[in-house]
Amino acid sequence: MKAVMKVEPKPGVKVMDIAKPKIGPRDVLVRVRAAAICGSDIHLYKWDAQALKWNATLPKVVGHEFCGDVVEVGSNVSLAKVGDKVAGETHIPCGTCYMCRTGRMHICENMKILGVHVPEGAFTEYTVIPETIAYKLPPETSYDEGALYEPCGVAMHAVQRAQPEPGDTVVVLGCGPIGIYVQQIMKALGSDVIATDVKPFRIEHARKIGAAREVIDATKGNVVERIKSLIGERGADIVFEAAGSGETITQSLDIVAKNGKVVLFGASPENPVLDTTTYIVYKEIDVRGLTGRYMYSTWDRVQRLVTRHLIDLKAVITNKLPLDKVEEGFQLLLEGKASKIILNP
Amino acid sequence: MKAVMKVEPKPGVKVMDIAKPKIGPRDVLVRVRAAAICGSDIHLYKWDAQALKWNATLPKVVGHEFCGDVVEVGSNVSLAKVGDKVAGETHIPCGTCYMCRTGRMHICENMKILGVHVPEGAFTEYTVIPETIAYKLPPETSYDEGALYEPCGVAMHAVQRAQPEPGDTVVVLGCGPIGIYVQQIMKALGSDVIATDVKPFRIEHARKIGAAREVIDATKGNVVERIKSLIGERGADIVFEAAGSGETITQSLDIVAKNGKVVLFGASPENPVLDTTTYIVYKEIDVRGLTGRYMYSTWDRVQRLVTRHLIDLKAVITNKLPLDKVEEGFQLLLEGKASKIILNP
Amino acid sequence: MKAVMKVEPKPGVKVMDIAKPKIGPRDVLVRVRAAAICGSDIHLYKWDAQALKWNATLPKVVGHEFCGDVVEVGSNVSLAKVGDKVAGETHIPCGTCYMCRTGRMHICENMKILGVHVPEGAFTEYTVIPETIAYKLPPETSYDEGALYEPCGVAMHAVQRAQPEPGDTVVVLGCGPIGIYVQQIMKALGSDVIATDVKPFRIEHARKIGAAREVIDATKGNVVERIKSLIGERGADIVFEAAGSGETITQSLDIVAKNGKVVLFGASPENPVLDTTTYIVYKEIDVRGLTGRYMYSTWDRVQRLVTRHLIDLKAVITNKLPLDKVEEGFQLLLEGKASKIILNP
Amino acid sequence: MKAVMKVEPKPGVKVMDIAKPKIGPRDVLVRVRAAAICGSDIHLYKWDAQALKWNATLPKVVGHEFCGDVVEVGSNVSLAKVGDKVAGETHIPCGTCYMCRTGRMHICENMKILGVHVPEGAFTEYTVIPETIAYKLPPETSYDEGALYEPCGVAMHAVQRAQPEPGDTVVVLGCGPIGIYVQQIMKALGSDVIATDVKPFRIEHARKIGAAREVIDATKGNVVERIKSLIGERGADIVFEAAGSGETITQSLDIVAKNGKVVLFGASPENPVLDTTTYIVYKEIDVRGLTGRYMYSTWDRVQRLVTRHLIDLKAVITNKLPLDKVEEGFQLLLEGKASKIILNP
Repeated sequence: MKAVMKVEPKPGVKVMDIAKPKIGPRDVLVRVRAAAICGSDIHLYKWDAQALKWNATLPKVVGHEFCGDVVEVGSNVSLAKVGDKVAGETHIPCGTCYMCRTGRMHICENMKILGVHVPEGAFTEYTVIPETIAYKLPPETSYDEGALYEPCGVAMHAVQRAQPEPGDTVVVLGCGPIGIYVQQIMKALGSDVIATDVKPFRIEHARKIGAAREVIDATKGNVVERIKSLIGERGADIVFEAAGSGETITQSLDIVAKNGKVVLFGASPENPVLDTTTYIVYKEIDVRGLTGRYMYSTWDRVQRLVTRHLIDLKAVITNKLPLDKVEEGFQLLLEGKASKIILNP
Repeated sequence: MKAVMKVEPKPGVKVMDIAKPKIGPRDVLVRVRAAAICGSDIHLYKWDAQALKWNATLPKVVGHEFCGDVVEVGSNVSLAKVGDKVAGETHIPCGTCYMCRTGRMHICENMKILGVHVPEGAFTEYTVIPETIAYKLPPETSYDEGALYEPCGVAMHAVQRAQPEPGDTVVVLGCGPIGIYVQQIMKALGSDVIATDVKPFRIEHARKIGAAREVIDATKGNVVERIKSLIGERGADIVFEAAGSGETITQSLDIVAKNGKVVLFGASPENPVLDTTTYIVYKEIDVRGLTGRYMYSTWDRVQRLVTRHLIDLKAVITNKLPLDKVEEGFQLLLEGKASKIILNP
Repeated sequence: MKAVMKVEPKPGVKVMDIAKPKIGPRDVLVRVRAAAICGSDIHLYKWDAQALKWNATLPKVVGHEFCGDVVEVGSNVSLAKVGDKVAGETHIPCGTCYMCRTGRMHICENMKILGVHVPEGAFTEYTVIPETIAYKLPPETSYDEGALYEPCGVAMHAVQRAQPEPGDTVVVLGCGPIGIYVQQIMKALGSDVIATDVKPFRIEHARKIGAAREVIDATKGNVVERIKSLIGERGADIVFEAAGSGETITQSLDIVAKNGKVVLFGASPENPVLDTTTYIVYKEIDVRGLTGRYMYSTWDRVQRLVTRHLIDLKAVITNKLPLDKVEEGFQLLLEGKASKIILNP
Repeated sequence: MKAVMKVEPKPGVKVMDIAKPKIGPRDVLVRVRAAAICGSDIHLYKWDAQALKWNATLPKVVGHEFCGDVVEVGSNVSLAKVGDKVAGETHIPCGTCYMCRTGRMHICENMKILGVHVPEGAFTEYTVIPETIAYKLPPETSYDEGALYEPCGVAMHAVQRAQPEPGDTVVVLGCGPIGIYVQQIMKALGSDVIATDVKPFRIEHARKIGAAREVIDATKGNVVERIKSLIGERGADIVFEAAGSGETITQSLDIVAKNGKVVLFGASPENPVLDTTTYIVYKEIDVRGLTGRYMYSTWDRVQRLVTRHLIDLKAVITNKLPLDKVEEGFQLLLEGKASKIILNP
């Protein structure tokens, strides 16, 4: 079968023919029908500092956001069935550590990530995952939508961490796919949403989707002042930092209102210098980090909003490509000319 | 009457004779019986960068932590009565801003601080405060204890912000009076407490008080490793940053467990460089800032623990001085040879 | 001036001429422009068991939901100004009890209610209230809308107590004005809402407003089964009991999902027999009561949704009457032929 | 091997010889060293209305609170190891329902209970459980203590549901083993605890243990008044209903303070008539039900307090018996002459 592989510790990926994988007793074999390129796949493609930090295994199939059909189940599988339409959770928890045993397997102490720490990945025809990370979707879900439950789950988890109140004023820094999903969810929950980004393509894309009342080009003028002129001097009840940069992290503390909440989930290559005394202590704010998604209350909440058409997962898709055009997909993303790219193997 | 005054914008204070103050219709006149020197009084004494930042009025009576008896009430006072034993809240809220109108007057948008932004202060024989910031104490409270409700309130507020769970493992960075109070409260709530400090006097003092299982000298060896050898590799459920330094803020993110809570309330002169991605995002922690105390649920909770002898407010007192020996008090504090100093005017 | 008075301890009200009231130093005089008849006014009209329980003062002006303009302020008033458009909070807290001193003045231990425990009320041309219960509205608010902030505040408080999560399934038992507001708010927050009532007028009215996906006539068939056929066997994440009857309280425990929340705020004349073991213990649910509104975070949240047109306060108005037709209003309500009736003095 | 069996649908149990059980691929075989008689075992013994409600399987080994050593593991067991000292969780979740998939397997929609809905039970020499419900204890735990983690877990779960604040005033209605554990835990957390019971043996026993400041004989005088004379007219911040009777449920609503919390977990044979309007709505309280324990954050919290000697699990043991004297144990309990009885097979 065809697979997008990372073979050597250097930039790039290769589309290769590999053997169809075999399943263990607690695994399921999934015929992948749609997969999506994530920001972390770009780190692996570039083989940059962040990729090195993850200590990724090689060789391996790249990719972790996907949807497909279960075509075979291991001898000890109890939940999944052949024919199930499933999305993959990405995070493979150990099940035995303190976090796993206390209901927080999404921050397992011994976490493995599909497409990073195991040979298997999503950018291929068949992949193997433990049944515990197969999330069964409603049958009417399209494959493309199914592949986007995972990134939308990060956005939903961010919202869950924020514990919004009725009518909150919300600022979302960053209009990548997850930032867009946060905007959509918060709008669906009745919040007033302002967004920012620095990339022209993303700003335009976010404006077209229209979940934010206003999308600000952060390269122009004083961003904090422009936001406050829109939402009031008091600042935002919640700031979601979805851009992953030192500058936006710093901004988030300034934009947030007294007693407000800053929610961090973007991976930032820079470590910001933060005036914690002025902005965290004296403003008495909460800074809340998060990674991944709850298994599976977050997934369930995404499903509720999708099923009721309150959010549109497909809104972020800008390109659909066959597996062997994956290189084109990476190039578009590196050039900042795409939002979410779907591969259909 | 005698008063410790800050007259000019330069280091030092002066003990002077001034007129007994007059009260407005919503004020109370209090005969001060005990007052305590706070860390912020030292900033004002030194007239350092922090003091300048506060934009303090001059001239004024110094001091804000105090206890005394109400001896006169204004014509429109409705709660306070002559003869009440009261402590002062320090923070004078405007009552009209968004924060005040939504139950958070302790972070009023137009806050004035007694002894900082008004001519009145606590280091004198008689002081005037709005009745709204007079907290009535149980009559059996000693004056010295009464003066310490305010700093203990910061510690209690820190605990309230931390929302501890049964049997939490807790690290308190800093053994100044408020750090000690956090240690006492958390011990009273059944937590396992480890403390650190860098000053020999404070380390010794904290060990004598004994609220922490272990008090670590942070000048020796790798502090994070030493703490983890005592509490386990997983880290602390809650870290209280009570030292107010860039180094301890950085440590707090490292010491805290996944999904744990870092509580910040020390005023730090340095702005730390923080790896928010590794420590806040990937560990999925909460960083919670706080300042002052809830009016008056925090005070009430302090009173409960004090009344039931679960914490000992007087444990932090190292010196008692008459008003005209205030200079000696400041010197002891500047030399790091005292914890809490009580003035008895 | 004209006023709707309750003079004697028996059914009925009288429209009379009385003297314009005088203000105290902390009061404001309000020219009432719109007032609304509340369910509790009907109890007072009927002088029934509930009215007796309240221990209402006599004689007095009836009514408490109102909006008007401040035309005079007392000598010690600090917040309100002549010309302010204000709504009345209804609840007059003492300011000195434990609840008032710990941020919960809406459940003051010595609460007085406008139009019930004081001679002043809202169904008249001029009324007097302490400035602390005058809520300043945005100037563009219509008087009719302004008079409805208070009942909508109960609905908002119910929602705040419920702490909804994204995509919750919600059942609202009761389609009186407050039930309708709960439906509107929960729809604005992205929930799936089902409502019930037993009165044909209210069912029809709720269907026309359309905030609930379905409005069930609870007089027909098995209500619990019909609800579960719409929302699934698992039951509702949140049930709001807005009808105030023994039957609906009992239903609420049955309709709610495991780990769900039942929010009670309707005043029920009957005390239900509840199988707490089956429905509260084994289903591990929360039952949360509430009365009134937070001063003033609830008001602020209503204002946010109204200002952004996410809810429509006027949707519940079925009749507008001049003051001297108040009797007609009470009759319509007693006959179940009206929802909210506005009086314009 | 010897086993305490329930064979027929009528009162009583039989000690019989049965075959050692066989394990499935995900099970562990445990050599039971200590087991404890629970209140629900008494229902099964009496074969009363409650037992019928549970729809218990027959024949089966009785009992579910136990501790022992793993002596064999199934072919697909991944966590447990031969030699592990374990306690049993009692609740066997399905792993696939909505509750299990959203982190609440303790209230699984298809729950089976050890000793009730499966042939296996704890009052025997060897028992079989799925590895998922084997909780590994610290090796230094005595077997008797180990068997008491499960009931203490209910108490801890009750405390977790109550979310206590520093210095809370707490009333525990009921001095059975779980009531005693609630008293111990709340004392360890710095609360002021008052307890009640109606049985002389339990009152005496609770007084001897001494976790409550006062243990009130509820058969004498007005219980609510006596409690309020001890804790103040405002009432209790938290009331734990651990007696499981209509009368104590009714009392709990009266004893609790405004905005307080009533925690229900006793199984009551009677359904009380509750004035929800006066006590839940107007007092704005929370009533929180609970059953079982979180898997496994509750267990972890029990372990923390036990390990640090803040609670004493063995304090409730009044009798230790060999397996074939189980009848004597049931008789003592039926006569109200014992608290916790340990069987050592």
